[in-house]
Amino acid sequence: MADPNDPGLLTPPETSLLVDRYEITMARTFHRLGMNEPSVFELFVRRLPPHRDWLLVCGLGPTLRLIEGMRFGPGELEYLSTLGCDREFLSYLEGFRFSGDVDAIPEGTIAYANEPLIRVTAPRIEAQILETLLLNQVNFQTMIATKAARVVLAANGNGDSVVDFSPRRDHGVDAAMKAARASAVAGAGGTSNLAAAKRYGLLPVGTMAHSFVLSFPTEEEAFESFMRENPENALLLVDTYDTIEGVRRAIEVSRRTGVALNGIRIDSGDLAELARAARRLLDEAGLTDAKIVLSGDLEEHRIAEMCREGVPADLWGVGTELGTSRDAPVVDGVYKIVADLSGEAWRGVAKRSAAKETLPGAKQVFRRVEGGTMTEDVIGTADEELPGEPLLVPAMRGGEIVLAETLDEMRERTRQSLASLPDALRSAGPKPSYPVRHSERLTEAAHAAAL
Amino acid sequence: MADPNDPGLLTPPETSLLVDRYEITMARTFHRLGMNEPSVFELFVRRLPPHRDWLLVCGLGPTLRLIEGMRFGPGELEYLSTLGCDREFLSYLEGFRFSGDVDAIPEGTIAYANEPLIRVTAPRIEAQILETLLLNQVNFQTMIATKAARVVLAANGNGDSVVDFSPRRDHGVDAAMKAARASAVAGAGGTSNLAAAKRYGLLPVGTMAHSFVLSFPTEEEAFESFMRENPENALLLVDTYDTIEGVRRAIEVSRRTGVALNGIRIDSGDLAELARAARRLLDEAGLTDAKIVLSGDLEEHRIAEMCREGVPADLWGVGTELGTSRDAPVVDGVYKIVADLSGEAWRGVAKRSAAKETLPGAKQVFRRVEGGTMTEDVIGTADEELPGEPLLVPAMRGGEIVLAETLDEMRERTRQSLASLPDALRSAGPKPSYPVRHSERLTEAAHAAAL
Repeated sequence: MADPNDPGLLTPPETSLLVDRYEITMARTFHRLGMNEPSVFELFVRRLPPHRDWLLVCGLGPTLRLIEGMRFGPGELEYLSTLGCDREFLSYLEGFRFSGDVDAIPEGTIAYANEPLIRVTAPRIEAQILETLLLNQVNFQTMIATKAARVVLAANGNGDSVVDFSPRRDHGVDAAMKAARASAVAGAGGTSNLAAAKRYGLLPVGTMAHSFVLSFPTEEEAFESFMRENPENALLLVDTYDTIEGVRRAIEVSRRTGVALNGIRIDSGDLAELARAARRLLDEAGLTDAKIVLSGDLEEHRIAEMCREGVPADLWGVGTELGTSRDAPVVDGVYKIVADLSGEAWRGVAKRSAAKETLPGAKQVFRRVEGGTMTEDVIGTADEELPGEPLLVPAMRGGEIVLAETLDEMRERTRQSLASLPDALRSAGPKPSYPVRHSERLTEAAHAAAL
Repeated sequence: MADPNDPGLLTPPETSLLVDRYEITMARTFHRLGMNEPSVFELFVRRLPPHRDWLLVCGLGPTLRLIEGMRFGPGELEYLSTLGCDREFLSYLEGFRFSGDVDAIPEGTIAYANEPLIRVTAPRIEAQILETLLLNQVNFQTMIATKAARVVLAANGNGDSVVDFSPRRDHGVDAAMKAARASAVAGAGGTSNLAAAKRYGLLPVGTMAHSFVLSFPTEEEAFESFMRENPENALLLVDTYDTIEGVRRAIEVSRRTGVALNGIRIDSGDLAELARAARRLLDEAGLTDAKIVLSGDLEEHRIAEMCREGVPADLWGVGTELGTSRDAPVVDGVYKIVADLSGEAWRGVAKRSAAKETLPGAKQVFRRVEGGTMTEDVIGTADEELPGEPLLVPAMRGGEIVLAETLDEMRERTRQSLASLPDALRSAGPKPSYPVRHSERLTEAAHAAAL
């Protein structure tokens, strides 16, 4: 029954209906026509988002799980029957299991426009029906990981100093979970989000809010109560009234209570200036170990500037800008059929819509790295062997996941990926683009398809 | 057990851990100190997002359900115990039920900066612990509904012509569900998202994708197969190769098969020009009932322009721009304590952080409407009676939901809200701002708190 106030939080098998209606219409039509030949679909981004020079690939692991677990339960089938799906097709869906292969660029890899991030080889109906969920998950997570990686680079590559504070501005529950995970893949050191910390094994980070300070008659009483009750985590928010006075008060309360001050957080005002003044006061009081946490609309440009200027921050709490990728909230990846089996032979297919052309045939990306720096990517056909490292690797075979990495593996790949970026692509400002070209064989195939 | 590749799709009681760590730290501290007095928190937006002149409030219904159902199960409690929560506090959480009152501006109402959208009156710990989830849900849904309302206004107020095509670019599963719901609240006529259509009782809409056309040797064969198999929904995507040729082919196949052409979709190229040419061809062929669906990076400015120019579109498929509110992907609502019970009397509290001040005390918004047009909002204290309609109404009492509206009720409120906007605020361009002032009593309270 429809319920306009339902929380709308889906779990499998309900997630199989997170599908655009046309996927089902097409799938049903293919089914009636017996058109379920092996087909190849590729997910790629036509153009990089504005303000982005590369993407950090993310989201594969959870997405493979969703694909592997894709089922149509009684509730889903009943709903589909109201949309005119015939009995034979519903019966097909009832037994639906993804049985195909997935090749993908692993999480934590740098990628560029037009490079296939994921390639699905499966019976046409299976490959088609995945489209919406696959794009919904991979576009968004790649977007957040890319933003987070930019923030980590801005923080001099010190991911441990970057913490995800985004849940309150993320686009819903799933977004908050995946923003935390994507940040971690990109190298961030922790998250404020306890559900994500629990599920993904991340470091949960937190201090106190203004509401805590305001719940006491005076800031002093608030600090004292907090320190006595949280001696192991005595990190005080000092900007509720007057920041510098707040720092003095924190030092004084630490002295009086004998509880070591773990640190302070500043969330408003001129962060750079206030952090410097706070550092001086803390050091003068002998509290050289007390950390300074900065937060409040932080993003890569401000962090890079403060790092350049030597602002004494130990932790950057990055919320809204990170969790929504505010300056580039969309990675508009698409998922396109590129080949199908026609009789005995693969047939490369391509559309020619204005400014939305596709290249035919299954593809691979070959990356050349020289002296630890990536120098050129060549997009070739999947069956050619070119110099360089092939970026797409097997992720599913016959419907079974064959690539399941640990978070450490993904984070280490990110570290290496960021280290191998050409210097020009590591800063946040405008820069020349990275060379990506097509192999001769792919160029010929495209030319042949256009005839 | 942490699992880095888990799909991360939460349902209650797991959603109770979608909470910033500091909420738990503070709640535990309040608990130990016995500070659980009645308190008032308000959710409001300090500044309207860029490119926005008002907000369309949305997300209350599902959020109230999440609050009402908030529990801490064994898994959640076990995790919290690893974060240093003491036995007494865990035992408190084990019995947690929200027992407070919520007053809120109902969904589909226009609101402005600094107006409380939601006011929570509850024991301090309960009110505090809701913060993250409340903001995560209401900020995002209000953002999407606002964007969708702008799109509806651009389409000459004809919501039935606007369809949500956003799932592939939304920020995850929850975002896709709520984007569809928020679009519906704003007046949109349907969604491509079947899970949302099912759950929220929306019209599921769909056509075909390029992959369908490309799965056949020729466009003609694709069209013919689709029309024969989907005679009740024969809407053809005509821009895979050459759009005008595609329209001609659609007409020809309709003639040959005897299946009425429901319409065509154009997704690339100069949409205005192509739609006009398509309309001429369809009309010349006597297919005056065949609809024209336009899609492809549409947003309110392009739609308004095409409407002004009389472009013959029957349906606007709006995806990426709608589902991510691309030009303003953040509504940065905050949730602040404004009062607590101190002995027998309410104590208004306010923070004075630079550029982030708050106003003390529980508030109400009074809207004056003259001749069907809203003319001024006055933010007053909750206990004063001023001319105009009070916007906040009871939504929960003693932990029970007392405001549960149907989608029709919300949509009707949106219709009236948009109709009552001053003319200057109904177009998409820059404009003067709407007058919102503070009542004398609120001004005095703020002044007193600042002393």
